[in-house]
Amino acid sequence: MNISERKLTLLCDFYELTMARGYFNSPVKNKIAYFDVFFRRVPDGGGYAIAVGLEAVIEYIKSLKFEDDDIKYLHSKGIFDEEFLNYLKDFRFTGDIWAVPEGTVVFPNEPIMIVRAPLIEAQFIETFVLLSINHQSLIATKASRIVRAAQGRLVSEFGARRAHGADASVLGARAAYIGGVSSSSCVLADKLYGVPAGGTMAHSWVQMFDTEYEAFETYCRLYPKAPTLLVDTYDVLKSGVPNAIKAFKAVLSEDEQKNCAIRIDSGDLTYLSKKARKMLDIAGLTGCKIVGSNALDEYLIRDLLLQGAPFDVFGVGERLITAKSEPVFGGVYKLCAIEDEDGNITPKIKVSENAVKITTPDFKRLYRFYSRETGKAEADLLTLHNEVIDENEPYELFDPNHAWKRKIMENYTLRELLVPIFKNGECVYSSPSVKEIKENCEYELSTMWDEVLRFENPHNYYVDLSEKLWQEKHDLLKNVKNKK
Amino acid sequence: MNISERKLTLLCDFYELTMARGYFNSPVKNKIAYFDVFFRRVPDGGGYAIAVGLEAVIEYIKSLKFEDDDIKYLHSKGIFDEEFLNYLKDFRFTGDIWAVPEGTVVFPNEPIMIVRAPLIEAQFIETFVLLSINHQSLIATKASRIVRAAQGRLVSEFGARRAHGADASVLGARAAYIGGVSSSSCVLADKLYGVPAGGTMAHSWVQMFDTEYEAFETYCRLYPKAPTLLVDTYDVLKSGVPNAIKAFKAVLSEDEQKNCAIRIDSGDLTYLSKKARKMLDIAGLTGCKIVGSNALDEYLIRDLLLQGAPFDVFGVGERLITAKSEPVFGGVYKLCAIEDEDGNITPKIKVSENAVKITTPDFKRLYRFYSRETGKAEADLLTLHNEVIDENEPYELFDPNHAWKRKIMENYTLRELLVPIFKNGECVYSSPSVKEIKENCEYELSTMWDEVLRFENPHNYYVDLSEKLWQEKHDLLKNVKNKK
Repeated sequence: MNISERKLTLLCDFYELTMARGYFNSPVKNKIAYFDVFFRRVPDGGGYAIAVGLEAVIEYIKSLKFEDDDIKYLHSKGIFDEEFLNYLKDFRFTGDIWAVPEGTVVFPNEPIMIVRAPLIEAQFIETFVLLSINHQSLIATKASRIVRAAQGRLVSEFGARRAHGADASVLGARAAYIGGVSSSSCVLADKLYGVPAGGTMAHSWVQMFDTEYEAFETYCRLYPKAPTLLVDTYDVLKSGVPNAIKAFKAVLSEDEQKNCAIRIDSGDLTYLSKKARKMLDIAGLTGCKIVGSNALDEYLIRDLLLQGAPFDVFGVGERLITAKSEPVFGGVYKLCAIEDEDGNITPKIKVSENAVKITTPDFKRLYRFYSRETGKAEADLLTLHNEVIDENEPYELFDPNHAWKRKIMENYTLRELLVPIFKNGECVYSSPSVKEIKENCEYELSTMWDEVLRFENPHNYYVDLSEKLWQEKHDLLKNVKNKK
Repeated sequence: MNISERKLTLLCDFYELTMARGYFNSPVKNKIAYFDVFFRRVPDGGGYAIAVGLEAVIEYIKSLKFEDDDIKYLHSKGIFDEEFLNYLKDFRFTGDIWAVPEGTVVFPNEPIMIVRAPLIEAQFIETFVLLSINHQSLIATKASRIVRAAQGRLVSEFGARRAHGADASVLGARAAYIGGVSSSSCVLADKLYGVPAGGTMAHSWVQMFDTEYEAFETYCRLYPKAPTLLVDTYDVLKSGVPNAIKAFKAVLSEDEQKNCAIRIDSGDLTYLSKKARKMLDIAGLTGCKIVGSNALDEYLIRDLLLQGAPFDVFGVGERLITAKSEPVFGGVYKLCAIEDEDGNITPKIKVSENAVKITTPDFKRLYRFYSRETGKAEADLLTLHNEVIDENEPYELFDPNHAWKRKIMENYTLRELLVPIFKNGECVYSSPSVKEIKENCEYELSTMWDEVLRFENPHNYYVDLSEKLWQEKHDLLKNVKNKK
């Protein structure tokens, strides 16, 4: 957070500087490069991801500037000449960027951002672009999985203490909120981004009083509106729940008793929640909610619900804020074209021993087909930048890996997913509020078939290539192979 | 980084504020609380951890201050009264902190930090203390595992693009360096912390030139001192390695040829590195090093070396900077004692259904026993704060979980691990340089038996309790059980 005030220009990989100096003295310096940002698979075997991280990228690019002490540091490395360092003094981003808005549902192998800029500039921003998008998309995608597993029950994020540093806790809370959680424990995420912050007590609160009852009673007097009492400091069923019931009855009005809650943070959550629910109901506290926490994630929440654990709210910490089951979002930044001074674009491809690592070349557009009948998203399509699609005509899609699999789209609307963010170095995009982004994400998810959103073994949503793009890719591949 | 300039006071959990306001209006307000920071197990089933994160905690505590806009934000929540908000305006930390220096080898269930402060203050800093120590200790510990797996070969960290945000990349690089890596790709970590930054080229460099050879030759001319050429853009053995050999021979002097390297970033690393080694040797480039990378961690490095892959250097990215195999370091912050206005200390314990979650009460000291004969660390010992140990007398240690297992220590030296960091709110500690911390960590590791440092199924290093502390813990447990 506060990216723009933090002098993060040097948050780059050293190779971006060695390459920059190399390009600086070479004829390729004045070429325009096109880089695609994309990822190859969804973490946890999921079927979709939520793109987040654009706002931080915008702030970073706007504030790019080599300060005097940065130049001094670079000078001290002994490999950068004065001319190059002088160039860096006036360095700023002058290119164009297109990206999907934050909260967009995205799929493997489609560009979620395209950077078009003079070579050195385009290469320089690689690290920050990736770390921002990778981190925040990772957390939003994980949050979306967890919230779906909770089947309509609220999920609250409270992993700050296990996050990988300050940014991970605050921007992680923002991403989790966009991805679907309803609140966070992180106060700074509330202040900066409007992520509703909540939280009540630690075990230490209970320990500070002579008795658990006194701790609960004091808390209810202080916060009679929606108090949540932590009932596992000593013994959930023998002490915690009975004391909570006693305190709720003694302090809260009948209306307030409908908005109270207990939280169980250890032990066998299914057994304890079932027993606690009975005790609460017998006491007439049928409105009292039960919050469950303790290293939960989508897998454990699914199991709790399968076992009939009567939780109303889940608190998720370390396994959301670190995306524990798969903490890496593998977004990459790959050169896809070069433009010379006359505006001629040469597509570029990266081959690999590993077929999935072969890139899709050229300056492209990304479309999403929606059925006019159902409103559902049917497939995404990558085309060359200058291709035109007439929405009133049928369009034949085919699987780029199995080109005989074909499908004719009719009665569809098209949406172009990549929108202009920077134009000639100027930001032309105004970020929506985080709440709007969250709502947009919810809407986007509602346009996806359940099969795509499925928890495990989801349906493979198609990201197809236009005939022309597919042909170009295969021609380039053949050329590379022939060159050898 | 730059924690002190970043207005992170509100990087707390909301419950710290609700509790603070509760304490503020209660008689316990003026009590002094003691909190221990400790963890219960080492990630990845390892036998030891490296404590890092103290410096960020110091910066945070020094800069604690509720700004006007923080107060305004809190006011807007509608649950904090004016008196409490006025109190926050002058809030600062006035307590004491002891901690192990950064780079210390630490073990489960021993306090790596003790906070003693007026209740509200001690409780308030919980989140930042934990997130800083958890994150940085996680990465340093992971780095130590990876570096040990590399068996003397250099390990370079280059995971910035997959880190969980800006702090995770920069402070992660710092922690990885302390934990044992020799360099990082992260430029800002070099500028701020002196972590040597390195890096050469991306695949895009190779793609920018008409031929791979031209890309390599240009690079060698620019950086004849220790160039590392990335040889897997098209085909490692048919194109990359032959072109690299040709470029090294054409451009580098004989001396320079002893300091060059190639990097293989995809494909079957064992097969490719063996073939490449032969090709380099046949060409007379016996000094040319081979760098391996591609989602490596300690497990993959161990396997590569078992298979005889002739790598000289490993580049590790996402699996180090996110600690992928277990990305959570479970440090906790637990109340262990309360001191009243007359200086009387009451020990506190937290019971749990789960025996390992029971805390060790009271204000304590932490000692490490070293054998005078071998210089090796033999065990750690927790005592009550006012216990005295005479190093010239034998000392009987016993296993706190199996009290009949006893061992008499003789001919030992004792080191107290927790050193004063804050005294009455003033910082009394001056952090060593990151390089010194790294060297200290290396020294500390050299005092550990190999069995403790082992990769898998390590020897369980003992963290014992003194007889008095053990007795007190068991008396408190009995009392809690009797209360029910």
